[in-house]
Amino acid sequence: MQAEIITIGDEILIGQIVDSNSAFISKELNKIGVSVYQITSIQDNRNHILDALEIAHERSSVVIITGGLGPTKDDVTKSTLCQFFDDELVLDKKVLAHIEMLFKKYIPTPISDLNRKQALVPSKAEILHNAHGTAPGLWMKKGKTVFVSLPGVPFEMKGLMTSAILPKIINEYERPYIIHKTIMTYGLGESAIAEKIEDWEDNLPDAIKLAYLPNLGRVRLRLSTKGTDKESLVLALESEVKKLYPLIGDIIYGEEEDESIEVQVGKLLTQKQLTLSTAESFTGGKIAQQLTSVPGASAYFKGSIVSYATEAKVKTLGVSEELVKKYSVVSEEVAIAMAENVKQLLETDFAIATTGNAGPAKGDSDEAVGTVFIGISTPERTFAKKFVMGNHRERIVQKSVNKAFELVLKEILNF
Amino acid sequence: MQAEIITIGDEILIGQIVDSNSAFISKELNKIGVSVYQITSIQDNRNHILDALEIAHERSSVVIITGGLGPTKDDVTKSTLCQFFDDELVLDKKVLAHIEMLFKKYIPTPISDLNRKQALVPSKAEILHNAHGTAPGLWMKKGKTVFVSLPGVPFEMKGLMTSAILPKIINEYERPYIIHKTIMTYGLGESAIAEKIEDWEDNLPDAIKLAYLPNLGRVRLRLSTKGTDKESLVLALESEVKKLYPLIGDIIYGEEEDESIEVQVGKLLTQKQLTLSTAESFTGGKIAQQLTSVPGASAYFKGSIVSYATEAKVKTLGVSEELVKKYSVVSEEVAIAMAENVKQLLETDFAIATTGNAGPAKGDSDEAVGTVFIGISTPERTFAKKFVMGNHRERIVQKSVNKAFELVLKEILNF
Repeated sequence: MQAEIITIGDEILIGQIVDSNSAFISKELNKIGVSVYQITSIQDNRNHILDALEIAHERSSVVIITGGLGPTKDDVTKSTLCQFFDDELVLDKKVLAHIEMLFKKYIPTPISDLNRKQALVPSKAEILHNAHGTAPGLWMKKGKTVFVSLPGVPFEMKGLMTSAILPKIINEYERPYIIHKTIMTYGLGESAIAEKIEDWEDNLPDAIKLAYLPNLGRVRLRLSTKGTDKESLVLALESEVKKLYPLIGDIIYGEEEDESIEVQVGKLLTQKQLTLSTAESFTGGKIAQQLTSVPGASAYFKGSIVSYATEAKVKTLGVSEELVKKYSVVSEEVAIAMAENVKQLLETDFAIATTGNAGPAKGDSDEAVGTVFIGISTPERTFAKKFVMGNHRERIVQKSVNKAFELVLKEILNF
Repeated sequence: MQAEIITIGDEILIGQIVDSNSAFISKELNKIGVSVYQITSIQDNRNHILDALEIAHERSSVVIITGGLGPTKDDVTKSTLCQFFDDELVLDKKVLAHIEMLFKKYIPTPISDLNRKQALVPSKAEILHNAHGTAPGLWMKKGKTVFVSLPGVPFEMKGLMTSAILPKIINEYERPYIIHKTIMTYGLGESAIAEKIEDWEDNLPDAIKLAYLPNLGRVRLRLSTKGTDKESLVLALESEVKKLYPLIGDIIYGEEEDESIEVQVGKLLTQKQLTLSTAESFTGGKIAQQLTSVPGASAYFKGSIVSYATEAKVKTLGVSEELVKKYSVVSEEVAIAMAENVKQLLETDFAIATTGNAGPAKGDSDEAVGTVFIGISTPERTFAKKFVMGNHRERIVQKSVNKAFELVLKEILNF
């Protein structure tokens, strides 16, 4: 049994938006054992939509379509679905009542005919309630294939997937288990790892697939397998993972799919009842933002001083002007002072500090673009390390954020 | 003339990564007048790759392939390309020298046979230099179609697109101009706008297409047109845009494609030689992070106090404990105090403050999840506004960040 995804919208094909819906849908389908064969992004165009539907119909059991259901005139999806299913649009009173309720409750402008038109649905479709918006989900069968049409607004699409589509698929289809296990490493390149684990890789059972996923100084190793007996699949993966540790245990910082490093930092801090603060210069609040993207972060993250300007480091963090003058604002000494001071100021157990030059111009320091210092303060000591992160602004920031999390994770682990 | 994009990699189809490469490529191709017909994400599988290449070959002049060029064993792309082009792999000495240089300069581990294998290229391919990585770009012709194969690492892909692919396409193909103009609005829903501009929309010339792009409380209106005379296309769009202002001028906050609201805030502050700071609670540094994602932000952005914990608001921002007790930490009064205090502390002209509850738990305040206050301090006054942002953590944060930028933009505009 396989699925595929069709996303409709010129905005994707002109690069105005990134299609993040497909990643969400793929991940959720995978979790329930449904493989995604292909993702196809197509134009708001009747013939193109019909072509894509035909091709998907021939090979997949479930086709998830997103986009093209808004109230305005640029949408052709619904009428094209009618053409494909040889169907016609009819008014759905329940959907209309829901639209009217949403307007009454949340939207200051009066309801219009355009809004009411969203209650028109193909007569053969099963209607799926969209709690968060005006366009309902549609569930339509043609031969052995189910076509599901969802609004493109990520929030509404996610609600419908979780509340309606996934439960229906679970209910109506027999599915194998697809199990992934991802090992996260840092500090070594793809090919260097590959050499270290060559024998292990050559001896992997045929049913287990390995993929290398390199990104910004880290490589993730993903093991995947598929079958009907979940327990034996999990055991098979675990037994292979165990053999990895003697080979590359020193560069592994985590396992589990989906567990970002900030989640791991948060879990460890919660377990050990410790707290963290940050003092950020060129990273501009990105470390704080990643930390606070984790629900429950307020238990261990107290706050951050984003001292972007040099004066802010002096005024809010109390870094002495002399220190800045003597060593320059991008220096080991300033990174250490920032980490120590923010830890004291916010009364936390650990602190992270960043100072560096992300370019494009040189800024308040003579250090070359790409030179950064990351300071870590623990209950026992404070230190800072220098890194040279290339010359690409965005990449310098993200690599430094990654590195800061790695450094602090190690310290918390060992505390 | 049309292009299409094929992205190769199981990691996309299991939802492990979001395909942001395609958005970049689409946008860049559009800028030089090349329409993207379709984006197809497929598996690391020989037959699937061959199928996708065949279909693209039939209809498109340029096919951009990304992914599947890493040094490790999970990659089948190169050998499949050889099969498709009836070609074989040969060693490219220049590529090998480049790989050896990269290892010597940047990579602590010794070069391996796996790395050297990346210098194997199809004999018929034109080799495009990848300054940032070991896998070169490949430019191969079959009939009237050009196939371009690029590494999937975004940084390397972008470098190759900019330095080699786009110049070659510009050089070798006659292309029309594709002009987009996007009007950014806030405060009114898609259908309410549609009604206000209905007559205008009905009278648009056939050559101009309109799309509504709603997202998190904002709607962008995109006008697109295509043709050979650039100047007349631009004029045609501009004349239509002009007619929009009498209809919805009050909700338009910007024009220009690609100009995010933080870029606009930055431009205005630079023009007027004004500065900005932020005091962030539940937004966790996201406003600071968006501000500092703009190169040159240090000219106007001084810093942020991310006072996630209530104690941090007291200790670092000097918000009085009595005020917090009297009004609760999520209140208009605290938002005002935060904005005023950070403005003073960092000596800036404007300040933004946020306090609220993004959930999932209620936190340090009795206010319901979704209740937020945004404070704005200007050289003339300080105020705070209350908003109710639903109950979805991520969405509450992003909507609040958007709203904060809107509020401050308006104040800076009118100052």
